Amino acid sequence: MRENGSHKSGEVALEFDAWFQCINGCSGRYELNEVIYNCPHCGDLLEVTHDLERLKKRSAEEWKNLFDERYRRHDWPYGSSVWGKKELVCPNVDNDNIVSTYEGGSNLFWAERLGQQLGLEELWVKQCGMAHSGSFKDLGMTVLVSMVKQMRTEGQDIKAVACASTGDTSASLAAYCAVAGIPAIVFLPRNKISMTQLIQPITHGVMTFSLDTDFDGCMKIVKSICQEKEIYLANSMNSLRLEGQKTISFELTQQFDQEVPDFIIVPGGNLGNVSAIGKGYEMMYELGIINKLPRLVCAQAERANPLVRSFKRGFKSFKSIQARKTLASAIQIGAPVSVKKAIRALQKFDGIVEEATENELANAAGRANKTGLLCCPHTGVALAVMEKLLKRGVIKKNHRVVVISTANGLKFTDFLVKYHSNTLRGVEPECLFKPYELPADESRIRQTINEALDGNLTV
Amino acid sequence: MRENGSHKSGEVALEFDAWFQCINGCSGRYELNEVIYNCPHCGDLLEVTHDLERLKKRSAEEWKNLFDERYRRHDWPYGSSVWGKKELVCPNVDNDNIVSTYEGGSNLFWAERLGQQLGLEELWVKQCGMAHSGSFKDLGMTVLVSMVKQMRTEGQDIKAVACASTGDTSASLAAYCAVAGIPAIVFLPRNKISMTQLIQPITHGVMTFSLDTDFDGCMKIVKSICQEKEIYLANSMNSLRLEGQKTISFELTQQFDQEVPDFIIVPGGNLGNVSAIGKGYEMMYELGIINKLPRLVCAQAERANPLVRSFKRGFKSFKSIQARKTLASAIQIGAPVSVKKAIRALQKFDGIVEEATENELANAAGRANKTGLLCCPHTGVALAVMEKLLKRGVIKKNHRVVVISTANGLKFTDFLVKYHSNTLRGVEPECLFKPYELPADESRIRQTINEALDGNLTV
Repeated sequence: MRENGSHKSGEVALEFDAWFQCINGCSGRYELNEVIYNCPHCGDLLEVTHDLERLKKRSAEEWKNLFDERYRRHDWPYGSSVWGKKELVCPNVDNDNIVSTYEGGSNLFWAERLGQQLGLEELWVKQCGMAHSGSFKDLGMTVLVSMVKQMRTEGQDIKAVACASTGDTSASLAAYCAVAGIPAIVFLPRNKISMTQLIQPITHGVMTFSLDTDFDGCMKIVKSICQEKEIYLANSMNSLRLEGQKTISFELTQQFDQEVPDFIIVPGGNLGNVSAIGKGYEMMYELGIINKLPRLVCAQAERANPLVRSFKRGFKSFKSIQARKTLASAIQIGAPVSVKKAIRALQKFDGIVEEATENELANAAGRANKTGLLCCPHTGVALAVMEKLLKRGVIKKNHRVVVISTANGLKFTDFLVKYHSNTLRGVEPECLFKPYELPADESRIRQTINEALDGNLTV
Repeated sequence: MRENGSHKSGEVALEFDAWFQCINGCSGRYELNEVIYNCPHCGDLLEVTHDLERLKKRSAEEWKNLFDERYRRHDWPYGSSVWGKKELVCPNVDNDNIVSTYEGGSNLFWAERLGQQLGLEELWVKQCGMAHSGSFKDLGMTVLVSMVKQMRTEGQDIKAVACASTGDTSASLAAYCAVAGIPAIVFLPRNKISMTQLIQPITHGVMTFSLDTDFDGCMKIVKSICQEKEIYLANSMNSLRLEGQKTISFELTQQFDQEVPDFIIVPGGNLGNVSAIGKGYEMMYELGIINKLPRLVCAQAERANPLVRSFKRGFKSFKSIQARKTLASAIQIGAPVSVKKAIRALQKFDGIVEEATENELANAAGRANKTGLLCCPHTGVALAVMEKLLKRGVIKKNHRVVVISTANGLKFTDFLVKYHSNTLRGVEPECLFKPYELPADESRIRQTINEALDGNLTV
């Protein structure tokens, strides 16, 4: 803990500053290099708070120009789209300690054909899965692992970094720790994640526990293990990660030439991402970089929908549930850690929470893939929810809509294989494509093609 | 065919110009929108030739500044790192016809830890697999599919685009055609590519043939099918693709602030990529953008090594072989299409051709993954060859070395699963990591961790 407004004696004052603070407003500020995840007064989550007054000393124009100058250039570490916004993300890390894989800068894909098919003029898919470890988690993990490197460099006894995961977090933590040479421990629910997601931490050589429980069970265990300060907790209860994730908002603003879209649709499980995106837009709004806010939509799987239930009660209460098995395994979470932050963000951003069934999410992904995307099931959830809001008239034809694609579809090819072979329970595939398995017999092949050409080759 | 030096009458002269021309120097120039793949005189490959004199009217400095201004910005289509070099790639396509997924700009990963372990100060891995369809093939496919869109717009009767593939080409072709709404047909060798690679064209809804033959057999069939002009050939015999792929060189030059590395190591199967990278450097050299050339290294799997055999004979002759089954399935090619172009490039660039066994490629990938990379088997081939040249003293400690990582490791997780479970024939895994499969019993987990912490947690 530190005195309000100042660093511990002996430290040089930073030009910019950030600290941990209780989300419920309890007193107390804590350094970002302290091992602390919860408020000592009320036990609730902490959040990273930035000294906005110092940040406001630069004009909106100056920030915009600075970010644009750095964007995707090669000046370490600012070419990373996370560290290109370092002052607003984590000014307290020395550049020497930054562990980066050139995060962000992912394509904002204009889904022109899909939009046309659905009757939406401006549908954009933010391809966050085009990342080192294949998901948006890298955006936050670079901040957390960099801070751990800094703490170890400063002499703190952190023996390992640990997380519970539905697959993407562990892959990201493992990759960054392997890059930095820091030991890591990951806890995964057995048989509930894809083989691709399981092999990532294994091949990075980190300690991988595959446990007979679900994500919420893994979370309980990692929280207990991390009571010992020498094992540092990397889950999103550790709000350092949200600081990196919020750069999705900064980047969308750059990619839309400072304009703000009408709707942003984010798959929601642990609810860190929707909170982070909200926080990013809020910060830009306060700094005058933008002058309106988007509507945020949190998209949940119907089989893991605690926030949908709370939304229907006007957010008057929230109850954890037992999440049921869903294809959208990364958001199969019944007791989301960041629920308070998410509700706060959704209330500020005129937010909506909506759900998608297994059939809806799989077919939304199938339809999108036919137009050249390669969606993970969670992106399917977001797309299905977008379609619902469009049908319902909440999203209108001329709205500019961004769907956040959270992970690389290559991580979930099992899902696609099963979809196209019609073996997913509860799913009636609309896009049933199969390969033609033939001997290398030219005349048979030619005949097959000619028949197709006479019909319509695009299936 | 057109008159030398001028477009067909009636067309507006382009500020810059490019055309097809025979690689053996036979007379004749052909428009890039003609359906022609081979020289009508000698039957050999064509290549895209640029009007260098026109390009030289701009100074090296002007080109450099133009490319840098556009690099990863949001001005369509120049934010794509391929189209950001449009004048040097394919000036003949109208921007309206460009089909792009924001190609290039992939991380040039500084493999600091791996380099340290191997005793190499500057080891860089160009992450070409961080692409829309998960491989470097997108760089070329955007050019080819854009040209097809242009030809169709101009009224040419092209009913479909076809390719034979070892997996990555078909995934890329399928994605781009799905984005553009153009029918596609792909030919894949049955049971010789990963399930992930097979599902990509299927989910994009293109006509997918899974044939009982190998790549060379698929190639034979597609060539025959494409005799009919209404089915356009997308294999790298079609040299339009190489024009996009050569931007790897342009981009490396930008990423190294106009410096040229000492060695570039490229996995080699059909040999288009090594040819393209050579062509890119050559073009920059002629335009004065760089003033030295890198040494090119082509890395082949020992089980599919026709170019290694030719290199050992001083390139005096080249014989196709029957490629044997290798983990590096994307380069399991015995009759490489671009062999002449590759040999020409390697001779100009003081090139080397070297091979890696199954054991070498798998363990090179395993070691790299332990330092945070996620290598496909082909990247493993390149890394293994790099290690060999380092041991042999050809590559020295202080050389700057770039390894081209051609595909996303997420496409080849089967390989990693088998590697870490020690079920790959001919491979003795050095990095045998396994998950701890346990019930969610905290005390047992804690004990396991403590034992590991007492030992060495990084495996």
